[in-house]
Formats: sequence, C-alpha cells, structure tokens
Amino acid sequence: MKKVVTFGEIMLRLAPEGYCRFVQANTFAAAYGGGEANVAVSLAGYGLPAVFVSRLPAHEIGQAAVNSIRAFGVDVSRIIRGGSRVGIYFLEKGAAQRPSKVIYDRAHSAISEASVGDFDWQAIFAEACWFHFTGITPALSDNLVAICLQACKAAKAGGLTVSCDLNYRKNLWSREKAGAVMTRLLEYVDVCIANEEDISDVLGIKAGGSDVQAGLINREGYRETAAELFKRFGFQQVAITLRESISASDNNWAAMLFSGGEYYFSRKYPVHIVDRVGGGDSFAAGLIYAALREMPPQKRLEFAVAASCLKHSIEGDFNLVSAEEVEKLAAGDGSGRVQR
Amino acid sequence: MKKVVTFGEIMLRLAPEGYCRFVQANTFAAAYGGGEANVAVSLAGYGLPAVFVSRLPAHEIGQAAVNSIRAFGVDVSRIIRGGSRVGIYFLEKGAAQRPSKVIYDRAHSAISEASVGDFDWQAIFAEACWFHFTGITPALSDNLVAICLQACKAAKAGGLTVSCDLNYRKNLWSREKAGAVMTRLLEYVDVCIANEEDISDVLGIKAGGSDVQAGLINREGYRETAAELFKRFGFQQVAITLRESISASDNNWAAMLFSGGEYYFSRKYPVHIVDRVGGGDSFAAGLIYAALREMPPQKRLEFAVAASCLKHSIEGDFNLVSAEEVEKLAAGDGSGRVQR
Amino acid sequence: MKKVVTFGEIMLRLAPEGYCRFVQANTFAAAYGGGEANVAVSLAGYGLPAVFVSRLPAHEIGQAAVNSIRAFGVDVSRIIRGGSRVGIYFLEKGAAQRPSKVIYDRAHSAISEASVGDFDWQAIFAEACWFHFTGITPALSDNLVAICLQACKAAKAGGLTVSCDLNYRKNLWSREKAGAVMTRLLEYVDVCIANEEDISDVLGIKAGGSDVQAGLINREGYRETAAELFKRFGFQQVAITLRESISASDNNWAAMLFSGGEYYFSRKYPVHIVDRVGGGDSFAAGLIYAALREMPPQKRLEFAVAASCLKHSIEGDFNLVSAEEVEKLAAGDGSGRVQR
Amino acid sequence: MKKVVTFGEIMLRLAPEGYCRFVQANTFAAAYGGGEANVAVSLAGYGLPAVFVSRLPAHEIGQAAVNSIRAFGVDVSRIIRGGSRVGIYFLEKGAAQRPSKVIYDRAHSAISEASVGDFDWQAIFAEACWFHFTGITPALSDNLVAICLQACKAAKAGGLTVSCDLNYRKNLWSREKAGAVMTRLLEYVDVCIANEEDISDVLGIKAGGSDVQAGLINREGYRETAAELFKRFGFQQVAITLRESISASDNNWAAMLFSGGEYYFSRKYPVHIVDRVGGGDSFAAGLIYAALREMPPQKRLEFAVAASCLKHSIEGDFNLVSAEEVEKLAAGDGSGRVQR
Amino acid sequence: MKKVVTFGEIMLRLAPEGYCRFVQANTFAAAYGGGEANVAVSLAGYGLPAVFVSRLPAHEIGQAAVNSIRAFGVDVSRIIRGGSRVGIYFLEKGAAQRPSKVIYDRAHSAISEASVGDFDWQAIFAEACWFHFTGITPALSDNLVAICLQACKAAKAGGLTVSCDLNYRKNLWSREKAGAVMTRLLEYVDVCIANEEDISDVLGIKAGGSDVQAGLINREGYRETAAELFKRFGFQQVAITLRESISASDNNWAAMLFSGGEYYFSRKYPVHIVDRVGGGDSFAAGLIYAALREMPPQKRLEFAVAASCLKHSIEGDFNLVSAEEVEKLAAGDGSGRVQR
Amino acid sequence: MKKVVTFGEIMLRLAPEGYCRFVQANTFAAAYGGGEANVAVSLAGYGLPAVFVSRLPAHEIGQAAVNSIRAFGVDVSRIIRGGSRVGIYFLEKGAAQRPSKVIYDRAHSAISEASVGDFDWQAIFAEACWFHFTGITPALSDNLVAICLQACKAAKAGGLTVSCDLNYRKNLWSREKAGAVMTRLLEYVDVCIANEEDISDVLGIKAGGSDVQAGLINREGYRETAAELFKRFGFQQVAITLRESISASDNNWAAMLFSGGEYYFSRKYPVHIVDRVGGGDSFAAGLIYAALREMPPQKRLEFAVAASCLKHSIEGDFNLVSAEEVEKLAAGDGSGRVQR
Repeated sequence: MKKVVTFGEIMLRLAPEGYCRFVQANTFAAAYGGGEANVAVSLAGYGLPAVFVSRLPAHEIGQAAVNSIRAFGVDVSRIIRGGSRVGIYFLEKGAAQRPSKVIYDRAHSAISEASVGDFDWQAIFAEACWFHFTGITPALSDNLVAICLQACKAAKAGGLTVSCDLNYRKNLWSREKAGAVMTRLLEYVDVCIANEEDISDVLGIKAGGSDVQAGLINREGYRETAAELFKRFGFQQVAITLRESISASDNNWAAMLFSGGEYYFSRKYPVHIVDRVGGGDSFAAGLIYAALREMPPQKRLEFAVAASCLKHSIEGDFNLVSAEEVEKLAAGDGSGRVQR
Repeated sequence: MKKVVTFGEIMLRLAPEGYCRFVQANTFAAAYGGGEANVAVSLAGYGLPAVFVSRLPAHEIGQAAVNSIRAFGVDVSRIIRGGSRVGIYFLEKGAAQRPSKVIYDRAHSAISEASVGDFDWQAIFAEACWFHFTGITPALSDNLVAICLQACKAAKAGGLTVSCDLNYRKNLWSREKAGAVMTRLLEYVDVCIANEEDISDVLGIKAGGSDVQAGLINREGYRETAAELFKRFGFQQVAITLRESISASDNNWAAMLFSGGEYYFSRKYPVHIVDRVGGGDSFAAGLIYAALREMPPQKRLEFAVAASCLKHSIEGDFNLVSAEEVEKLAAGDGSGRVQR
Repeated sequence: MKKVVTFGEIMLRLAPEGYCRFVQANTFAAAYGGGEANVAVSLAGYGLPAVFVSRLPAHEIGQAAVNSIRAFGVDVSRIIRGGSRVGIYFLEKGAAQRPSKVIYDRAHSAISEASVGDFDWQAIFAEACWFHFTGITPALSDNLVAICLQACKAAKAGGLTVSCDLNYRKNLWSREKAGAVMTRLLEYVDVCIANEEDISDVLGIKAGGSDVQAGLINREGYRETAAELFKRFGFQQVAITLRESISASDNNWAAMLFSGGEYYFSRKYPVHIVDRVGGGDSFAAGLIYAALREMPPQKRLEFAVAASCLKHSIEGDFNLVSAEEVEKLAAGDGSGRVQR
Repeated sequence: MKKVVTFGEIMLRLAPEGYCRFVQANTFAAAYGGGEANVAVSLAGYGLPAVFVSRLPAHEIGQAAVNSIRAFGVDVSRIIRGGSRVGIYFLEKGAAQRPSKVIYDRAHSAISEASVGDFDWQAIFAEACWFHFTGITPALSDNLVAICLQACKAAKAGGLTVSCDLNYRKNLWSREKAGAVMTRLLEYVDVCIANEEDISDVLGIKAGGSDVQAGLINREGYRETAAELFKRFGFQQVAITLRESISASDNNWAAMLFSGGEYYFSRKYPVHIVDRVGGGDSFAAGLIYAALREMPPQKRLEFAVAASCLKHSIEGDFNLVSAEEVEKLAAGDGSGRVQR
Repeated sequence: MKKVVTFGEIMLRLAPEGYCRFVQANTFAAAYGGGEANVAVSLAGYGLPAVFVSRLPAHEIGQAAVNSIRAFGVDVSRIIRGGSRVGIYFLEKGAAQRPSKVIYDRAHSAISEASVGDFDWQAIFAEACWFHFTGITPALSDNLVAICLQACKAAKAGGLTVSCDLNYRKNLWSREKAGAVMTRLLEYVDVCIANEEDISDVLGIKAGGSDVQAGLINREGYRETAAELFKRFGFQQVAITLRESISASDNNWAAMLFSGGEYYFSRKYPVHIVDRVGGGDSFAAGLIYAALREMPPQKRLEFAVAASCLKHSIEGDFNLVSAEEVEKLAAGDGSGRVQR
Repeated sequence: MKKVVTFGEIMLRLAPEGYCRFVQANTFAAAYGGGEANVAVSLAGYGLPAVFVSRLPAHEIGQAAVNSIRAFGVDVSRIIRGGSRVGIYFLEKGAAQRPSKVIYDRAHSAISEASVGDFDWQAIFAEACWFHFTGITPALSDNLVAICLQACKAAKAGGLTVSCDLNYRKNLWSREKAGAVMTRLLEYVDVCIANEEDISDVLGIKAGGSDVQAGLINREGYRETAAELFKRFGFQQVAITLRESISASDNNWAAMLFSGGEYYFSRKYPVHIVDRVGGGDSFAAGLIYAALREMPPQKRLEFAVAASCLKHSIEGDFNLVSAEEVEKLAAGDGSGRVQR
C-alpha cells in the first residue's frame, strides 16, 4: 500500500501524575505528541505505512521523541536532525468543573527553526498517496509557512490527496495571520477537518445557533458552515467535530461529514474522559484510514468518530487502538464488557 | 465454627497502571487472584475459617501467591507445592466505551498439572461444613475433572454443603465439554451460582427477553431459568447475578435468588467501577457467609449483592470488606459519606 | 493589606495510593493539612497575607509541616516549636458506595499540649484584620479552650472580625462538652460557618425536613436554622454548606448565606469528587476572601461555593486555586474546556 | 516442632523513598516491624512455628500490622486487639557520611498501654520451647516491665529457653532505669544477645580498647565483656555483635559467641548496606534457629552472622531469606553470582 | 551497509522494584529482552541495520515485545506472529552478598513452538553480512535445533559471517545434549564467544588454575582454552569474557580475544553494578560492531569490553549506549565526570 | 541578622528515575535548582535570612519554581515575574564508568531576557550584608552582564561583601568572552570561589602538575593558582575546590582556602555519590555561612567542605542539611551510625 505522510512538530509532553496541579508536581509523566505525529501513530496502528516528517535535535531528548513513534511502527527515516530544542508542553489534567490546562514552551524548537530546503518533498512523496498536516505547523514560523506551501504543491503535483486539520492555536499567531496563511494553503487541500471554533477563528465562518460554552449544538448551523467552506475552497470533503463540554470529566462527542454534496451526522457518544488530548487527531486519522479503505461516507464518519471516542479513554496523545476495536464500537458495541 | 473449603487456581495478575494499555505498560501491578481464592479471602475477612486448596510451585513466585492470601487470614496449610508455573493473567483496565481486556497465560500451571491423588479430601474436609468451587477448575485439565469429582463425592459423604459458580471460560474448553462435565459435577451441588451467560453457554438454558449486550434484563426470563435449573438438578438454591453493562466504567448490578421454592430479587446498584474483577466471586462469598449466618433468603441475597457491589470499588481480585461494611450498605446506606 | 490569622492544628495526612484500602497500602502519599491551615493556604493563594499560628515539634516531620504551607506563601513566623508529635490522620479514599474512611491518630500532638501563655495574641494580631478558627481547635484539649478564648478576646479587643467553622468531631469530645464550650466561644464570633449536622450536634438546632443520609435538603429548614443561630448569637453572617451525598464519588454542593437580615442561596454544583477533604475549609476561605474584597452577599456566597466546588477536584487538603479560577466558575463557566 | 514465642511491639515504619530526606518526602514506603516481630518473621521463614504476641488496635492500621507478619507465616492468634495507636517510626535512609535518622512516634501505642492480665502466658507457652524478647519491650511502660517479668517466670516454669536482646533505646528510658529493670529480667534469661554499646549503657560493662565511633574493635575486650556477663548472670550463651561503621553505606559485621565456656569469633563480612534496620534481630533469629537445629557453637555463630549479613541487603525490617540461602553464605559463597 | 541478523527469543522481564525480593513485590518493572534481541538493539544503537528474527504471539503482550526493540531501531519485519505465550523471566536484583535470582517461565513460548519452515532464511539473509545466535536458541526445542542448523547453513551459503555465544542454560537442557547439539552447530560458526563456565559445561574444556567462585582468573588457562577451541572447531575468532565476582554489587570485568593466531587481553574494569543482565550480549554486540568497522584485534576487544562495562551501569537487558560513548571509555576515560 | 542576597537563574530540573537513561525515561523527577538559588536554600537552612533575586514567568511553572525555594524559607519577595520560559535542564544520573549527562534547555528563559532596570539593587541591598552570584548569570545574556555589574557596584556601595563562584559553562559563552566579562566583574568581588578547571578556562591560570582527568591533585600548584588570583584581583579570600573523579559513583572531595595571606587545606572526603549536582554551590554556601559566623579560616574551610560532602548524599540541587549536621561531620564523625 502507498504511504501516508504527515508533517509537523512532535513535542515532549510533561504531565503531573493523576489530577495533581502543576504546583503539586514532583514528577512529570513524560510522553511525546503533536497533531501530525499523533495521526501517523494512529495510521501505523491501523496497519498503514505512515511516515512522519519533522526536525528534531540530535541529542537524546530528540532521540527519545523519535523512538516514541518508531515504537509504534511509524517510519521515522524522513525526520532530519538539527536545532537544539524539542518543543515542550506542560499538561495539567482537569476534573469536573476544573478545566485541563496547557502551558506551551515550544518557541525555538528544532522544527520551528527549519529552513526552506531542509525537506526534499519530491523524494518524500515518491511512494505516497496522502499528505496530512494541521494549522499548527505553519503557525510555528514563517519558514514553515513556506515549507508547508512547498509540501502542498509537491503533494498535488504528485497526485496525493491532501488533508488539513485547521487547529487554530491563539498563542502561536493572530486570527488575521492565520486567516491569510490558511486561505493560501487550503487552496491545495482536498479534505478539510475542523471544529466549529477553528472555522470561526481562522476563516470567520460562524455557525448560527450554537453556543460552544453551553455545549449546545445546532445541526442546521453546521450544515451551513460546511456549505460555506465548500463554496469558498471547493473541498472534496469537510468534516466538523462536535464537542459538547459538560465538564472536564464528561463530554459528548460527535461529528458531521460533508461529502459528495451530502451531509452526514454521526452517532453521539457520551465520553467519560481519561485523556482528551489528541481527540481531534484521532478523528482525522480515522477519516484518512476510512477513506483509504474506501468505506462509504456514513461508515467513514462513524469509524472516525468511534476512533476518537476511544481515544478519550487512553492516556497520552496517541490513539493506541486497532481498526478492529474501532469497528466494534462503530458497529454499536459500547457496553465495555470484559474481553477475555 | 466449621471450615469452608475452596479449591481452584490462584494466578499472578499483572495489570498496567491506571488506564494504560498493554502496549504502554512499563510496570505491572502484581497481585494474585482466582475465583476460589477470592471466595476464601472474602470469607476469612468475614471472620470465617476459610481453607484454600491448590497446587503451587515451590519457588518464590509460588510463595508470593501463598503469602498473598495468608496475609488475609486464609488457611494455606492444604496448598501442596510442586510444578513449575504460577498461572498468569494480564489485565488491562477499560474505561468508558473501551472494554477491559484479559490475556490469559495459565496453561501448564502447577494446579492444571495436579494428579489424582494429590489431595486427601477426607482429611481436608474433616472439620469443614462447606465446599466451594467454580467451573474454571475442571476446565483446566482432565485430571482436574476427576479431582473435582472426588472432592464433590467426599464433600457429600462428609455432609458438607457444596456450592459451585458455573463461570464458563471459553478459551479453556468448548461449550460441549463444559456442558458434559458440569452436568456430572452439578449432581453433587447444593447451591448453584451463575450469570445468565454461563447458564446459556454451559447448560444451554436461555432466559427469554434479555439482551446482555444491550443491558436489558427480563425478570420473568430469570425466573424461568432458575426454575429450569431447579428442575434439572434439584439445587437447594440457585443464585443468578444480573449485570447491566452501560460502559466499562458504569454497570448496574443486581441478583436473584431461588430458594425454598420462592424467587427473590435484590436491589439494583448503579456501580461506578474501580475494578470489577472478582465481582462474581464476592457475590458467591457473600451468599455462603449469609447462609452460614442463617440469614433469611431476601437478606441473604441483599448481603451477597451489597458485598459484590462494594467489590467493584476495590482494586484487585479480593473483596477486602468487613461484614459490617456490607451490612451497612445492604441496610440502605450507599451515600458514601466520610467515616471518621 | 492587613493580615488574616488562623489558629489550629496541622496534621500529617497519610493516604494509600488511588483507591487502595488501608490493608492494601504499601505506600502512603504524605501531605499536610488541617482546617485552619487549609484556610490560610487558600487565602495566601488568593494573594492575601495569611498567618497560620500553631505549635509543632522541632524535628524534621514538624519542619516538613511548616514547609508544606510556607511553600504556598503562608506566614509561618508565628508557629512555635515544641512537643514531640505531629498529629496524623490516615485517609482511605472511598468510591461509589464505599465511603472514605479517616483514622485519626492526633492525640498528644504538639498543639494539643500547648500551654496558656504560649501565644502572644496581642503581638500576633498587631497588623491583622481577621481571625479564623474552627471547632476542632478547642476540642483538642482544655488548654486550647482557654487559648481560643484568649485569642477571641484579643481579636475583638483589636477590632478584628472573627469567624468560626463549627466543625464538630465526635471522637474528640462529646456533644455536651462541645455545646458548652462553643457557646462560650461563639460569643466573640462575627461570622459563623457550619453544615447542618454540626449545628445540630453542637448547638442542638435541627433543620426540619432534611435527611442528610438521603441527601434531601429543605431550603425552608435552613432559613429557620440560620434565623435561630442569629437569634441566639447575633452573628453578622451565618453561612451553611449544603452537601447532598449521592455516593462517595458524586455529591451535590451548595450553600446558603444569611447576611444583613437576608437569606441567599447559591447555585448547586454536581461535584465529581477527586478529593473532598478540606471542602468546608475552602468554603470558609472563599467567604473570608470575598468579604475582605467587599463583594455583595450573593457574589460572596457564589465565590465561596465555587471555590469549594473546585476544591473537590484537587488532591490533598489545600485548595490550590487562584481567585481568577474561582471567579470564572462563579461566573458560570463550568464546562471544563481545556485552557491553553 | 515446638513453638518459638516472641513478645513486643510492632510499629508502622514510614520511610521516604530512596535516599530522600524527611523534608523531601511526598510519599512514605509503609512497612511494619519491631525487634521481636522481626525475629518471628525470620523464624517462620526458616520453617519454625513462630508466634508473635502483642497488642494492636482493632482498626485497619492495626489489622495491616497483623497481616504484615501473617503473610510470612507467623502465628498471630495470640495478638490481642485494643488501644488506639499503632506505634510509628519514621526512617530516613542515610548514605555515605550522612547517617540514617529515626524519629520515633511510639508513645501511647496499644502495646505500651497493655495491662497486666492481658496475656495468659501459661496458655501461650503451652506447646512452646523458646521465648524471646528484647530490652525495648520493658522500656515501653511500667506495665510492660511487670508483664515481661510474668512472661519470663512462666517461660522458666514451662521449661522454655529464654533469650533476650538488650537493645537499649535512650529515648525510652534512662540508663539507670534500664539497668535496674534489665538486671531483674536477665535473671530468667538463658541466652543474652547484645552489642557492645548496649552492654555498656545498660549494665555498665565496658570492653577495653574499642572505639565504636572509629570502628575499632578489640577481641580481647569482648572476651572480657562476655566473661563478666557470664559471671554476673550465669547465661548459657552470650552473643555480642560487632559492627564497624565505616559510613552509612558500608559497615563491617561480625560477632562473637561465648558458649560452654568457650569463645568463638565469626568471619567478618564487609556489608554494602541496602537497609540495616533489623540487623540485630536477624542475628538473634539466626542464633535461635541454629540452636534449635542443634548446630555446634561455631556453626551456630556463623549461621547467625551470615543471616544478619544478608539482612543488610534487604529492604524493610524483615530478613526475608531462607535457611538455605543463609547456609550457602555461611559456607563461604558470598560471590553474589546470579542464581538462575 | 549490509544487515546483521540475529535469531532467538525475546522474553518479558519482570523485576521487583529496587532491591526488593520476589516475596515483597507489589509491582514489576516490565521490560523485554533476550540474548539475540539484546545484540540487535546494541547494533542498531551503533547505527548498523540490525534485524531480529523470532516468533511472537499476535496478542498485545507479543506486540509490546515487538515495539520494545522497534523503538530502538531494530528491523522487526522478520518476526512472525503466532503461538500463545511470550516467554517470561522474573528477575530479583541482588546486592552485596545476596545474589541476583532468575526464575524462568519460558516453556511453551511462541518461539519454542516454531516449526521448521517458519523462516525463509534465504530471503532473510538476502542483504545481510552477519548472522548471530546463542546457545539458548537451540536449547528451547528440538525444532529450534533444526531451524538453527538451517539458518547456519543458509548463512554460510550466503557468505555471511556467523557468530555464536555459547550461553549454556542448565535448566533448558543437559550438558550432554548441549554438547552434542552445539558441536554440530559450531561447525558453521566463525566467531565463538563464551565465558569459561560455558566452555566447560558445553564442550568440556576446562581452563586450568581458575576458580570462578573465588573470582580468580588465570591468563594462561584462558590461552589454552582458546587454543583448544581453535583446534577443535577452527574458529576465526574466539572471545572469552572474564568475570570476577566480588559480590552481587561489584565485579571485575575483562576479556580475551584469540584472533589471527594471537592472544589479546583487555583492560580489566572494576564494575559497580546497576544491572548485569545482558552483559555478555553487549560484549558480543561490541565485538560484531568492531569487526564490521574493521578495527584491529586489540581495539576490537577493548571496544567490546568497554561496551559491556557500560552495560553494567544501565537498567534493563539492552545496552543503550552510542559508539562514541564506548570509544570514549575504551580510550581510557572512565572518570565519570559530568557531561554538560 | 542582615540578609544574604543571591542573584541568578533557577531552572526546572528533569531527571529520569534512578539510573535510567534519557531514552528510557517515562517519567521525570521534577525539581528546581540553579547555582545561586541553591546557595540561598543552604543559607536559609542554616538559619540565615536569605533572599533570592531572579525573574520567572507568571505562569504556574514559574510559580512552582518560586514555591520550591520558599518552602525552605528563602525570601522570594524580590523575584520579579515576567517572560515566558523557566529554563530547563535534563539530568541523567551516571553510575560507575558512565558519566552523568546534562542537556541544557535554558535559552530564552525569563531571567536571560531581564532588562537593565528590572532590579532596584539599592532597595534589595538595604538590609543586606553579603551578595553572591556565579559566573553563570552574566553568561546568560548581555543584559545580565550589565545587571551583574550594577549589582556589584551597588553591593560595594552598600558595604556588602561580594562573593562569586566562577562556574564556567562552555555552552553559554566562549572562554574569551567569559574571561573579558569576569575580569571586569571580579574587580568588585571579595571572595572568589572556583575549581581548577574554571580558573583555567576563564582566567587562563593553570595549576602545574595536576591532571583533572586522572584525578591527580598537586597541592603546590593550587597554592600558585590562589597566589596568582590574589595578585591579579586582590581578593580577600580565594577558595578552590578539589574534586578527584574516580568514577561517576565515587569521588574524592576537598578544598583549599587562601585567606589572610595563608593557605589552608581541608580534610579529603571519599564521597559515594547519591547526587553531585549542587556540590560546588553547597561549598560556597558553607563558606558564606562560616564567614558570617566568624569562624577561623581552617574551621571555615572544614565547614564548607563537610557541607558539600554531605550534599553529595542528597537528591536534588539543594543541600538540605542543618548547621549541626555539618558541624558534626566537620568535627570528624563520618561513621554514618544511625541517629535515633
């Protein structure tokens, strides 16, 4: 099978144990993760040849980041080594009414200081069929805007499908800059993935009648949003994740898909959260996998939503589930009975 | 007071920390457990003289298994030492829609290689009043079928009450073999404990109108099942546990008892799960204790269900609660207010 | 800003990991806490100058207790050193129907053996505006009754506001003795904080129509209780916390405030419990902070309830939250969405 | 085989992890131990029927103490339950030039408040052949002096061998009181175990030419000490352990035995310390076991010294070794080669 | 560069924390390792393309074993999946005079039940230059004898260098069987690695004048041993590791090499042991690497010995060091000064 | 007593557990430390009023750094809040021949981006008698060179004693720049502390006849070095620490002091290392304390060396010892006998 290539940053994730606050932490659980790396790990777990492209320092913390995804079968041969920092994010897990907190310490990371010319996209895409990135990568530096543009062009030239998860991060860039840059990049994108907030923040398209804070979701508004995205960028597919945040411990999770001119809505899962970081990435990976397996739209959507539902029950950024496990849930078995 | 004897396997239980998946585990919490050992620990905790009979290797892992139940007051003097393996089961704790997973590595364990003649049942039962085993023990080897048969006969000859928890394990034997063997053994049994699935799998008796997957339970069906069991085997008592699996995190838990020709249904507890392994064993132990304390049927049932309700809140296989704690819950106080 | 002074015991808290029972504990998480120390930590976290007055042994365990609150900015210069024991409490965290359990081992602690004359209250209160203590402190020894009386008198003489949380502990003294002593001390108190049980146990005032066990709460009854308290002691403010205990894992949490002749009822929060110890203390601290910030009564109450709602999501006795976090929740955002 | 009975206190031992200091401790490793309990665990480990007599609170911390030795096969049926405290000792492990530190918090423990009449020594000694206690037990309270005296008399009346480890604890009593009390008790003792410091502190007998601080040991002086002890009390055997303290990490360890009028000196082991608490107790247990196995004096001594040498490599108070392991070392194999 | 292929078993390694004994273990550190897997990880760490060939169950414990070496860059594409058990070994770390203990639970593992025909050696060796295995692999089953023979023949046919570490395991087979089988296999071996005990146990060749127990080593005897091996099998190279076991904590470590008719002796390192498992494997890997880098004999030997010296300071089976680190030590810098 | 002020960076220290390598780390022990913060903690521990001046981000990781030293009594009121990063260093603990490794990730930290004008030195030094900094602080940025210069001038103007530990860090600046900057700053310094390497790297003064790598130390050379330093800068005191690195586990540690025209050499301690980070800082703190306590030179030196000897036995950067503990060792008791 042809390869799926993802491109972005992988960070060191440092989380206090259990529900401890930052000021209580005497140890940090150390893991690695980042939007595109998370997608690559998911895909490798489903049995696809997944390649993660990035830049990491030559030192041992950089090596540990490499090993963290190589362990799960991701092809790391396209990661170049250089720079001095692995980006870091500190994660404090919330509970009940107390939200999770993320402190980013990612400025000056090796990938953010990558140079145009560091990556030979033609070679990287040689045997690939799909390219995925998120809105975080171009937000990291101006060089990365240029590199993403190169990658997108090379991908289209090579006949790859290009998917992008909007993923707006307000502490990396302004809405204005995000809007301008992403508008250029989305030109090359076939499959657009986003949540409602991203679409509003980056592209200024607001769904009527929803209130993210209150957890209310309005189906009609989402239809309009998808339609507007399609109109503006001509995407093959638009997928929008719908999160209702009841508390830091409990969310509802669903998604819609616009594909082939039709709108599909998934089942809605009540998710009792073990770790919600990477939830969106697991959705994107599910969608890519389902597309490559040529599932019909509703099944594709249900696979992606079930995959990300399961992610919420797994520690760390990575969605360490098999396709069989996802399919079992997508087929309706969420009873959680012991598997012996 | 006279002794209660249980006979079976005690395994090393290896569980990744918290909600980690097997592929994330860098450490395993090590504990020991197994159906009949769990019952013995419960009974010792209630203050009864409980004897656990088994076979374990002479080496230190075998010794650790011995110590694990001796710590809680179980009489281990009837455990014989020999063989080379302690059976192992790996347990991955599920959450929300992700089910718990058990990988058994118990073949060739010391007890499974026990010989007919290893146990002197007459001596073991000398001062005993009750014998308990589960359908797992005869499933481990043909020798164990024979040994169970010996034990049952000796128990009846010695005037003991015999209880059996059907506990069908599909990776140990086929439904056919289980049906044939258990049918022979149940001849000697006075108190039969089971869940609906076991009864269906082993004895082919199906309750109408229930859907285990969907968590629907039909009282009438259970009545019929119990009646059928009574008709076929003439049990003094039949107890059936009723688990509604909402998710890996939340179940409803109740039971019915058929005793003296009457049907009793317990309260239903919503259980928020800390660890559900050993839930059925804690029910069996509660029933045995309540019988020996000569509680009336409804109270007996409520004690057993409350005991197993509490088990779901306790880490490990063992139900480390006192009779007072069980009685408090059975009497209606499930408010969980701090006890100072 | 002028100082807030609290006076009482700080204990070593020893808790088995996770949901382990005492008899399963191979390690204890070690923390420190106690009613008045918890209040001081909260206030320091809100940016107020908070002074904790106590007596602790000169040895390293005593020093660790000092450091535990100094770390969070509490002024420890008024803690005197002497005696030989740091009081201890063992805490077993409950889950679902299994209640949390506390075993106290606090007799003969350094503070309980303090002498009249150990504390120079005039000096301690020199630059202070508020004095807070709980009903636990005078319960520890007869000397402490006398010392509390001294402190109360000195506080009133110095023009401080005095607040007291009734906090009845049945294993420290009888209802009769508590009633007699507290009646004398409450004479000096401006702000009385309590839950319904405390008021009934200590002062014999019962709210009609509530059933703590069953978790039922009757607003009218609480109004009457507050009115009665006001009538008897002429408090400026009476605050009563309302806990509905659904299980050891889930409570509802609210409070009422009687202030300026008016009754205020707060929002009710469903709290999914991480650690409920110190819940009442975090409420008291919220009330003191809100009073010193001169919030109007309803806002004061909502701040205090939101603060203690958050406490339930935090490990340990201390409510390690900022005023901004509390205000955000009090303003209505309990959705728990990730803060990046 | 007849039973060996030991009598004394078992405490909760709380130790910071690794080499952390008390003021760095966020968790304590929880274990249980105490001189006579440690001896009982050793003897049970060697396969002897060992009975530990004590008094412990009825609560769960008391139960955990019971379970901690029951796990290793000690007969706990003679432990009476009552009182409110389990004595505690905090242990900070030293390294290199930094000494280990112990903070005792054992006053008012259940055993220290035992009453004369609590123990039926005649019944306890019914099938026993040996009674062992240490100088710590009578130091705990005046009642315990009386109880020890009762026990000693009953033991002699019952024909048991009585052994005593002097074990002077300066924070429990003065040298004067210790001297007076122990002189009375030693009248009943057959086997006296001590280190040089104890003998000097309690009985005022000083070995010439040694300097404990400097780690110098003078054989001739030890001979004189033993001779003096024999002269004064007529002991059958006197055993003196010889510790040369090079640093908190490295000691030399040896012992001498006076038996049948002859002096025996053991091999000297350089011990790299994992945990030295219980070193003396493991020596006493080794000596008792070797005596009951009727080894000749030199072999008896070598067994006891080898046993306690191994103890220094084991975490916790208990010397969890088998007789075979001790014999292997006593026979000269200290090479530490992997046993597969 | 051409590949190095190793073939054998990878086991789950379960070790109590720190210096805890098996009977004290509440958790096991979980890692994976085995002679040939360890060699592959070392070689991958040095930058060589290393392929590990084995058979592992399809389940998650099998997958975790795969991931454990894939993380470090080993090519796992030749591992076939099947069978039901991952072999296990329990490891108790010794200290001072207390030896480390290994309990094997590896019978019936997936690899031990491999069939002749499972591995296509011609394909596996297609781009390889070196094949390495140990005496453990053929000891696991008769099928594995046949498979090793196939592999050796295919390797020679393909022009690969073949190396074998004798590694005698007495609980897997008798000396007689080992001798007979290994004699057949060594026919195909170019580089023979062993310690003195292995050579004596398997091939009956004893070095005069050494006493392994006492840690004495006789250079002349080793020369004779190597000469005898060369005479009997005509090896290109013979490498013998020389371990002097002072205690479980301290060993001396050195080696000799016979190559090109000359004898080379390495520096001798005093090793303070963190974890000695895999010491021999790290030596073998060092020797293979040094050979492929075409170092002269003395340097080759020094590289291998320095590599294995470092292994003793690293937790787990794998020697996670870089070639630069090894070269630095081999060049004489063992001062351990902090690298910033 | 007047205050001691130290100025510099405090970093987050992330260390894998035990002896794990970076690539094995799943958790990091989180602590905080840095040269001047370490000195402040030591001094506070000795009972001196110690003020640490720095700049830290307003977020919770910054707060945790503040709390980490406030817990031990350091005055943190002069730490200003701003910037976005807490500097980080990753620490891998070495053992035996494997050296410890430090990976710095401190660029762009809050303190390195401090502005001239951020600190009001006159106010800071108002009630102070001593100012201490190290060569690391000016190495962090050009602004910090200017700020250090301001601080030094203000300190001299205020009549404070100024001490400086040269502490050269090659990855922060070149030898040339260090030499130029430090030469300017040392003009204001009264007490110069350094090791031989620093003096050579920064000031180009080499002691003859020593070989740091080989651990050889030549007293005469150190005398010459101190004399040369005195000649060039006119220091009141010069203290040089002498570390002989035997391995990562064992060092020898001593120091010399030049004071009042005389040379003093300390005892030499063999240190078995628990954690050597902060060793030099603990020496500096010892020297400052001893000077302020007006000890005579030899005693001053012995105090400082004993203090830093003890530091090597303590986890983390901070030397958590009391003056009494240091004095006991300085007085000759390094036997490590248990303190009860």
